Amino acid sequence: MTTYTAPVDDMQFILHEVFGISDADVPGYDELDRDFTKAVLEEAGKLASEVLHPLNKVGDEQGCTLENGVVRTPEGFKAAYDKVCEGGWIGLDCDPEYGGQGMPHLLNSCVGEIFVSANMAFNMYQGLSHGAYNAIHAHGTDQQKQTYLPKMVEGKWSGTMNLTEPQCGTDLGLIRTKAEPQDDGTYKITGQKIWISAGEHDMTDNIVHLVLAKIPGGPEGVKGISLFIVPKFMVNEDGSLGDRNAVTCGGLESKMGIHGNATCVMNYDGATGFLIGETHKGMRAMFTMMNAARLGVGVQGYAQGAVAYQNALAFAKDRLQGRDVTGAQNETGPADPIIVHPDVRRNLMDQKAFTEGARAFALWGSNLIDKSDRKGDAEAEALVSLLTPIIKGFLTDKGFETAVLAQQTLGGSGFTTEWGLEQFVRDARITMIYEGTNGIQSLDLVGRKLGLNGGKTVMGFFELIKSFIKENEGNAALEDGFLSPLKAASKDLQAAATFFMQNGMKDPNEALSGSYDFMHLFGHVCLGYMWAQMAKAAQSALDGGASDTAFYETKIATGRYYMARQLPATAMHRARIESGAAPVMALDAANF
Amino acid sequence: MTTYTAPVDDMQFILHEVFGISDADVPGYDELDRDFTKAVLEEAGKLASEVLHPLNKVGDEQGCTLENGVVRTPEGFKAAYDKVCEGGWIGLDCDPEYGGQGMPHLLNSCVGEIFVSANMAFNMYQGLSHGAYNAIHAHGTDQQKQTYLPKMVEGKWSGTMNLTEPQCGTDLGLIRTKAEPQDDGTYKITGQKIWISAGEHDMTDNIVHLVLAKIPGGPEGVKGISLFIVPKFMVNEDGSLGDRNAVTCGGLESKMGIHGNATCVMNYDGATGFLIGETHKGMRAMFTMMNAARLGVGVQGYAQGAVAYQNALAFAKDRLQGRDVTGAQNETGPADPIIVHPDVRRNLMDQKAFTEGARAFALWGSNLIDKSDRKGDAEAEALVSLLTPIIKGFLTDKGFETAVLAQQTLGGSGFTTEWGLEQFVRDARITMIYEGTNGIQSLDLVGRKLGLNGGKTVMGFFELIKSFIKENEGNAALEDGFLSPLKAASKDLQAAATFFMQNGMKDPNEALSGSYDFMHLFGHVCLGYMWAQMAKAAQSALDGGASDTAFYETKIATGRYYMARQLPATAMHRARIESGAAPVMALDAANF
Repeated sequence: MTTYTAPVDDMQFILHEVFGISDADVPGYDELDRDFTKAVLEEAGKLASEVLHPLNKVGDEQGCTLENGVVRTPEGFKAAYDKVCEGGWIGLDCDPEYGGQGMPHLLNSCVGEIFVSANMAFNMYQGLSHGAYNAIHAHGTDQQKQTYLPKMVEGKWSGTMNLTEPQCGTDLGLIRTKAEPQDDGTYKITGQKIWISAGEHDMTDNIVHLVLAKIPGGPEGVKGISLFIVPKFMVNEDGSLGDRNAVTCGGLESKMGIHGNATCVMNYDGATGFLIGETHKGMRAMFTMMNAARLGVGVQGYAQGAVAYQNALAFAKDRLQGRDVTGAQNETGPADPIIVHPDVRRNLMDQKAFTEGARAFALWGSNLIDKSDRKGDAEAEALVSLLTPIIKGFLTDKGFETAVLAQQTLGGSGFTTEWGLEQFVRDARITMIYEGTNGIQSLDLVGRKLGLNGGKTVMGFFELIKSFIKENEGNAALEDGFLSPLKAASKDLQAAATFFMQNGMKDPNEALSGSYDFMHLFGHVCLGYMWAQMAKAAQSALDGGASDTAFYETKIATGRYYMARQLPATAMHRARIESGAAPVMALDAANF
Repeated sequence: MTTYTAPVDDMQFILHEVFGISDADVPGYDELDRDFTKAVLEEAGKLASEVLHPLNKVGDEQGCTLENGVVRTPEGFKAAYDKVCEGGWIGLDCDPEYGGQGMPHLLNSCVGEIFVSANMAFNMYQGLSHGAYNAIHAHGTDQQKQTYLPKMVEGKWSGTMNLTEPQCGTDLGLIRTKAEPQDDGTYKITGQKIWISAGEHDMTDNIVHLVLAKIPGGPEGVKGISLFIVPKFMVNEDGSLGDRNAVTCGGLESKMGIHGNATCVMNYDGATGFLIGETHKGMRAMFTMMNAARLGVGVQGYAQGAVAYQNALAFAKDRLQGRDVTGAQNETGPADPIIVHPDVRRNLMDQKAFTEGARAFALWGSNLIDKSDRKGDAEAEALVSLLTPIIKGFLTDKGFETAVLAQQTLGGSGFTTEWGLEQFVRDARITMIYEGTNGIQSLDLVGRKLGLNGGKTVMGFFELIKSFIKENEGNAALEDGFLSPLKAASKDLQAAATFFMQNGMKDPNEALSGSYDFMHLFGHVCLGYMWAQMAKAAQSALDGGASDTAFYETKIATGRYYMARQLPATAMHRARIESGAAPVMALDAANF
């Protein structure tokens, strides 16, 4: 019953009017003119609406099955995957040297949102591959790259990331999977990995597993972890497929959502593995994959909110129930559409204001990655490193919340499988957990990223906000509804950071007890900053005589909503943080 | 994989030390001494842990099936239901004249929480019956009462509430089901009702449907609705069952959660119905059922949070991952239990502080119902009428949120069906929707309840808080951590109410745009008030030399957490409310 339409106009607005990308000094951005990006996004949107989204419910209902070691994906997934490959979407931002299209990450993120909104479980098959591609591209030898990347870019082979084991998820130091060196330079990999997304399936000819394992005799803990390539089928010198490797799917996880994606137990029984990067430096290589993956998960979070909002909105315009308290709006009908009711609007505006703000924020992150990757901008690299845990943690928490709000718009219908909203909620829920739980993101933010470059990176962020406010003082359209709230929110953020600095040294729990709130506080400031920029761009367009006044006025009104109704959360998070560690740590574990 | 233990000690603390019920001047409370309530709660807990909870997952996995008009409940449900009946639990608070045990509502709420935590889908079969019992008891003729109530109290027959139709949920004025008067004084009921919980099942001999329908020629809209008893099987004069009535189950709803409960499409094809209460006064009769039902749904909300918390806590104590940043706590093990980590504690404390505060709040509501029912206390009646939408709306929103937090405690395991946490989330979700969506609760609160008795009722609530603060000034244990935050929160609530009064008259949207936030603001003040009272009672026990110091100290510490970390939300809700209607109402529907 759900439908999906790609938000092409909104994306175009962010790319060209807010970020002005075709004028930006980033190699590759010169190709991204309005017409080009529009054509790409519309094409992606067409595939998403017509092919991927109709399979969303099919995937949820059928799930995946395992029989005699073979995993079958839901009906239609393989055919749809082939279409995605044919369109060249898999390698959109991949290295042309290996057959990719070499597009900037920014454009890939837009397409990613569109595909994820349409069908998250489906899109994960290629999403995981992309992570594996990144790791091999960054750390593989030339031969490894030549062997694996062209097929992965084409989509003929897929990839996976194997980190978790039954006894360890977050704490990878506890990994038990062994990698025993062989005389020929390969390793025999033995152990069990769990929760491996797309670990086994029927959509590609080969699956390239990237596996964290320990070489016996290496250092204890995370310092003794290495990364290996373990192909499902061995690859002959001529590139053809050889013997089956000793890696098998031992079971499928039954789970709350993303049923269309196979979440596998993977058993490695002396499988042949190839070291990638240096011995014992596996964590570093894995982190290359994880930062991009975390940003991608942030996109998944708000993308599920976005499609849920679209469907909630359609319902709210269609469903007749009750009358506008200020006077009937649909006099000839039995009742007014529920969108007339203030509380329904409050609900819809929360969804809309978050989703559009989140999109700008995630695309800003992608823009920073491009600056880092394509022109070696170290400041951009540091800034996106700071923002990544926020993009992941904040956008997935709020994306899930948005899907829940959208479900609520439908009342009882929202709870039925028929209407499809409940699937968005169930699918969105995983984004708060995988690629590092959101609690872990908050620790990364407070424990590692705040201190990046001796605190210069976060100070640089504050400076950005300050400069923006200063530059726009006197801009009547921004001053009242945007600059003042942004200033107040930024002040809350700085106060919280100061609290950590003053107290966290003496007792790290003083900082760690507030890490989650800090992530949310920071997220709100980022979205407030995005909305202020979007309002500015919209006002410029109006001042310049743009014809689509409703579009730009709506942007400004939605931004005002965010500033008035969402941004005040910063003061609450600050109060929670400033209450310190004592309330959090007071109880003995036995007394909970 | 989940377990459940009834929170008997926590309930005993609230009943006897916070509310001092056996000394309270409410008829029937004199029987409720410590030993008696303990025995009842332990017995309920035993049934819940040993019989009902093991069926929770079974019910979720098997769901209900419809074949040839017959609905089968999951394996074991019927046998468990018989045990519940044998124990006399169905009629615990029912009128002794019809075979009930005549216990106060307060005790019934405790038992209700226990059964709902153990198995919400199962408990709904008797929960709905209880609503139907209430309506017949309040509005039925003597003959109707004699015919239906004894069997319902015994549990041999169950009851349902039939409100919703495809074209109307909230807006019952749009009801189309017809009730045509017959010469013998009965009515022929024709129409379709949807989302009827326990509409058809195999656990009882008969099902007593209470159905809203319109008698042709009556007033338009809600003023023309009457309430009818429509038994599945006609009842002969001697009480035996006669012919099958023309009411059938036309389908089962497939839904996100509560799979063990049959959610039915009910078709009435000229079924024989008996008017209950006066013609066209059906809404009034239905509201009798709904207030109690709404309070019951509030209990469901936090009860799902409570069982989820128990299981999250057990996981957090057991799962070894990472090290306490201030020094290893489990030196001989490979890692520390995750409960050592501040962010895990933050998560658990949010769950614990909400759940225990919510329990006190819901039991306060039940206490007020007893005062109203058993001694005709009009102030208590008005107060619980004011608090009911808050108990329903706030406790279910936060109960769901708590289940989501608990799921998060488990990381990836929380997303798997094996661990069972995700079921609590799916089951809890419906509580925010049925018996009036939480948006509707907030409209009831702001539109109807704030103005109750010309505003005297809400002023009386503020007076309660003020008196409590005044009485306890100088109580060192309370002053700092409890009284100041409560005062600040109460001030936010009064400011919000004032904003509505000053602006809502001119433009009702000014009040309605803030109704949802007001419900949450009010809910936080209520829980803050509960925690202040619990802290006071705990401190008294400590001062009086109670031996179980850990129990009481934990109560105070948990309360401090609530005041420091949760209560600051009131300022955010106030800011949202005071931003007024403009941001919410700015967009034309077409521009969303």
